[in-house]
Amino acid sequence: MTFPVVGMVGGGQLARMTHEAGIPLGIRFKLLSDTPQDSAAQVVNEVVLGDYRDLDTLRAFARGCDVITFDHEHVPTEHLRALEADGIPVRPGPDALVHAQDKGVMREKLDALGVPCPRHRIVSGPEDVAAFAAEGVPEGGEGDGFPVVLKTVRGGYDGKGVWVVHSAAEAAEPFRAGVPVLAEEKVDFVRELAANVVRSPHGQAVAYPVVESRQVGGVCDTVIAPAPDLDEALALRAEEMALNIAKELGVVGHLAVELFQTRDGRVLVNELAMRPHNSGHWSMDGAITSQFANHVRAVLDLPLGDPRPRAKWTVMVNVLGGDYPDMYSAYLHCMARDPQLKIHMYGKDVKPGRKVGHVNTYGDDLDDVLERARHAAGYLRGTITE
Amino acid sequence: MTFPVVGMVGGGQLARMTHEAGIPLGIRFKLLSDTPQDSAAQVVNEVVLGDYRDLDTLRAFARGCDVITFDHEHVPTEHLRALEADGIPVRPGPDALVHAQDKGVMREKLDALGVPCPRHRIVSGPEDVAAFAAEGVPEGGEGDGFPVVLKTVRGGYDGKGVWVVHSAAEAAEPFRAGVPVLAEEKVDFVRELAANVVRSPHGQAVAYPVVESRQVGGVCDTVIAPAPDLDEALALRAEEMALNIAKELGVVGHLAVELFQTRDGRVLVNELAMRPHNSGHWSMDGAITSQFANHVRAVLDLPLGDPRPRAKWTVMVNVLGGDYPDMYSAYLHCMARDPQLKIHMYGKDVKPGRKVGHVNTYGDDLDDVLERARHAAGYLRGTITE
Repeated sequence: MTFPVVGMVGGGQLARMTHEAGIPLGIRFKLLSDTPQDSAAQVVNEVVLGDYRDLDTLRAFARGCDVITFDHEHVPTEHLRALEADGIPVRPGPDALVHAQDKGVMREKLDALGVPCPRHRIVSGPEDVAAFAAEGVPEGGEGDGFPVVLKTVRGGYDGKGVWVVHSAAEAAEPFRAGVPVLAEEKVDFVRELAANVVRSPHGQAVAYPVVESRQVGGVCDTVIAPAPDLDEALALRAEEMALNIAKELGVVGHLAVELFQTRDGRVLVNELAMRPHNSGHWSMDGAITSQFANHVRAVLDLPLGDPRPRAKWTVMVNVLGGDYPDMYSAYLHCMARDPQLKIHMYGKDVKPGRKVGHVNTYGDDLDDVLERARHAAGYLRGTITE
Repeated sequence: MTFPVVGMVGGGQLARMTHEAGIPLGIRFKLLSDTPQDSAAQVVNEVVLGDYRDLDTLRAFARGCDVITFDHEHVPTEHLRALEADGIPVRPGPDALVHAQDKGVMREKLDALGVPCPRHRIVSGPEDVAAFAAEGVPEGGEGDGFPVVLKTVRGGYDGKGVWVVHSAAEAAEPFRAGVPVLAEEKVDFVRELAANVVRSPHGQAVAYPVVESRQVGGVCDTVIAPAPDLDEALALRAEEMALNIAKELGVVGHLAVELFQTRDGRVLVNELAMRPHNSGHWSMDGAITSQFANHVRAVLDLPLGDPRPRAKWTVMVNVLGGDYPDMYSAYLHCMARDPQLKIHMYGKDVKPGRKVGHVNTYGDDLDDVLERARHAAGYLRGTITE
């Protein structure tokens, strides 16, 4: 048998769903996980427990793997270079992945490529933040240029490591971690979009339809595929932009480009993620080939699957932890109410606000599809009780 | 967390695909498997190695499971009764499952229910077979009534344990195993159909569309969903018959009713299987809820999912082992040729004629969908090389 071994670093839900998508391909899937309780560790046969920040652990794990890929972007870049030097294919590779690890590097690269981004600059302290804010005031304009968005260049996710500050006085906190801080203009956006693409080592790439992504409290809440009422030319421009970024950065696997759609009809790049992404979860039930299946195919350099939608509308709503720890008993109501509902739970303990699953719905009538997904997610969380 | 533990007895591909379908539900899945190389054992986290024919092994495995279900029908009926006496829900239960384990019991029960079957009788030896054959010759008719189909009442599958005999002299072999032998008329059928239904403990049941199943050498080769050109009334009758059998036999989980469609427009029951079935594999990509997902929901007494098709036509073709042990390298051609192709491999070593996977295709044009599935399966097997 020549079926390859895919080594997945990180035991979260993305690894869990990638394993699920890999089963039909008959490949072997090996997991490096922190604990046996991790989301993916519960469902994968070959689990190695260990710390991805330790190079020896990574090296031992990588031995016998045909390729290494990731559940998250936190593996130190130098470790990835060491694995590559050992002859292990790392996908995406460190030269690409650094753009998803370090927001400073990402902004610099996108600037060089001419990709539209929010105005931004690495800042050195609260006074520098005030100066950055002031630079955004048009000549003869009023105000001090605040609010400004501050981000630590490494380590943030789901709203963590991000601050919206309204004055220099508020701007002290982000500098306390000792990590470089990126200041960005607070974009007056109409909505957030995401362009998801997948690229393989030999350069084949596919683009999923651009989706609308609605955030609540900095956390993704709802994704609608495709984005409703999106101008066709703008959708095409966003897809081309994502494909171009994937190519120029040498991405292998899934790339999510989070975008702001501005009032004046432009799209600006907010964030990059180089792994299957929350904004692509709809594809599990809504696309011919899911983001997870295509990520596996890409990292194995297999021809990619068709990313087109299977339904007119697909809606994903995240299930966050609420006050009730028992979500299983809610299945009875949710499944009986909607026999077409797709529940995806991650095997995680319920904690308030924690992403513990998502639901997908699809159909021809967007209002109906949205209502069904919201109802199910709310009922599972416990915020809807009838 | 109150998420239940499903105990699956048997490590074949049906267990593998049931695990895949159970991952999104967040349940725990525990497997009793013969070897770590078994199809499902490769992809499941909690694997117990042991012999399902040993009651102590079964008892130890069942401890801590909320429900027990099966990859195959070979667990001795008395062991299942012992587990039930221990207080472990066994689904399907022994009183139902015996009808899929023992063809003699199955025929007797279907007769009592008035379900149309081929003419049949338990026979005691070659001379009795000749007598059975002669009974089938109409008054004033010619010939000796052969050929006749002989089946051992237990232990057969995929054409094993089945003989088509043309004379009493040929009829000695089936009796050598010392298992009771069932004689059946050789039905002059137009084609084979299958009616797949799923039933839950509290009596909810769903019916998948009736499919056409094409066999080659006693092994399922191609399934077309729904069965082309099937009279609507006949399709409805077949679905109702399967639902009625599930109810009357007290089936919990998936029931496949294999049917002969006769020249005079009737359907006769050929075989029953009480587990996800090869004739339902199309549902993984072709139905809103797959047979595997619905089997899991049924054994957990959760509301069942919608069984309706997502595409006009879905075709499943089995991938059998050929002369080439390396099917992975064939992925390049198959995936590049057809980005919509769905490959499902079971992680099994290739042996000539062995079922090692299947492919699904779907679309609006049956000829195209059939061609794509056949090409991919043939290419993977090595019988098509361009």
